[in-house]
Amino acid sequence: MELTTETTERGVTERDFVVDGPREPVPGVLWTPAAAATAWPRPLVLMGHGGSQHKRAPNVVALARRLVRHHGIAAAAIDLPLHGDRTPPDERDLALPDRQRRLRERMAAEGGHVAAAHHAVDDWTATLDALQAHRDVGTGPVGYWGVSMGTRFGVPLVAGETRITAAVLGLFGWAPGPHLPGFDELARQVAVPLLFVIQWDDELVRREWALALYDLFGASTKLLHGNPGGHLAMPRAEYRASEAFLAHFLMK
Amino acid sequence: MELTTETTERGVTERDFVVDGPREPVPGVLWTPAAAATAWPRPLVLMGHGGSQHKRAPNVVALARRLVRHHGIAAAAIDLPLHGDRTPPDERDLALPDRQRRLRERMAAEGGHVAAAHHAVDDWTATLDALQAHRDVGTGPVGYWGVSMGTRFGVPLVAGETRITAAVLGLFGWAPGPHLPGFDELARQVAVPLLFVIQWDDELVRREWALALYDLFGASTKLLHGNPGGHLAMPRAEYRASEAFLAHFLMK
Repeated sequence: MELTTETTERGVTERDFVVDGPREPVPGVLWTPAAAATAWPRPLVLMGHGGSQHKRAPNVVALARRLVRHHGIAAAAIDLPLHGDRTPPDERDLALPDRQRRLRERMAAEGGHVAAAHHAVDDWTATLDALQAHRDVGTGPVGYWGVSMGTRFGVPLVAGETRITAAVLGLFGWAPGPHLPGFDELARQVAVPLLFVIQWDDELVRREWALALYDLFGASTKLLHGNPGGHLAMPRAEYRASEAFLAHFLMK
Repeated sequence: MELTTETTERGVTERDFVVDGPREPVPGVLWTPAAAATAWPRPLVLMGHGGSQHKRAPNVVALARRLVRHHGIAAAAIDLPLHGDRTPPDERDLALPDRQRRLRERMAAEGGHVAAAHHAVDDWTATLDALQAHRDVGTGPVGYWGVSMGTRFGVPLVAGETRITAAVLGLFGWAPGPHLPGFDELARQVAVPLLFVIQWDDELVRREWALALYDLFGASTKLLHGNPGGHLAMPRAEYRASEAFLAHFLMK
């Protein structure tokens, strides 16, 4: 794995990378402290972006930079399958609502969710392997942060990836039925310290679905944080809580 | 109001007081920074203890001392009606389950909840008047902290006491019916920044009742924090969150 296109701003070095994924190359971004003398191996947070977003979604970049600046924690994001630089060529010029409809249709198709989850987890596994093998990251504690689609794929990732020891999830739900096959069992396997975030007036995720998912998680340390507002209105204070939670459990 | 029985430990001065309440004397405790030079007027947090507890319940004392030591915020607790030093003489020697049954019966009697809430709010008003008139407190920002019975009486207090500008409530719920007359309307009037805490497996407060109460609050800044466990298992980290929330909103 090569780290390229280096820029440094306010103590945070940002570098692009491409991981040799199991199906296709996986483009990503790594944020690390600019000062060479900081502790190593350092904690690392994997950040899963939301649906129709990409590895440099503003909320991902902002939280990644804070983890680096305030705690010396490295952060990495990848373009998840079909997103960002991996968007299919014939969908690149679609208006956002049409693009979101195409993504939803794929997920709702027979086996669509399970296949997508496998692809995403495989990409994350290859990415984590590559990052931990790199001299600027190493094999320190690993956390995961991802809401909405970042939780859709974060639950199977955190359930199976034993290197991850703390996670922030949210803006996603579960209900009995065929929509998310096996998802409830995976949620039960999430046993690391967990912060789960809901938006009380989420227009995409029904409140009882979100609470049902929180209920499923197998973690003994699991915090529920709720705030008023819709799917995209997660307040800045809640990102601060994510930062404090990950710093606490990765650096203690 | 006289402040008596002064003790100082690790930078926190603790003094007893008795307020001339509207029905009977109200005994309380005030915690302030020992260093005379700290800022004045200082923020003050009123702390409402739980059912069958008293003004020096261990969770109240611990949080009060942290507010003083870490933030220079004063804290005060009183024995609520029928509790602590105000326990009726013929109930002083009752075993805890019998005592709790007596308290529940009073609250469940016709008009019992409304009368108790009025008494508690009147006592708090007299206490706040007296504390703000004292040279060691003054008229700084005021917060409220109280869970369980501390929320039963905290909701009417915070709804009507305009001097209170931030509150932590929780471990209490609401459901349609005659149990808590007028309580829903009072909850809608709680409009200050609010942190509401639930215990996910609370054996005394059904989850849907707690969530219904959270839903009622009129505050635009209202955080929901949940944790696994029963009514008495609120984790230490949640007290830390109470401390940070009150410090943020009283000192900004």
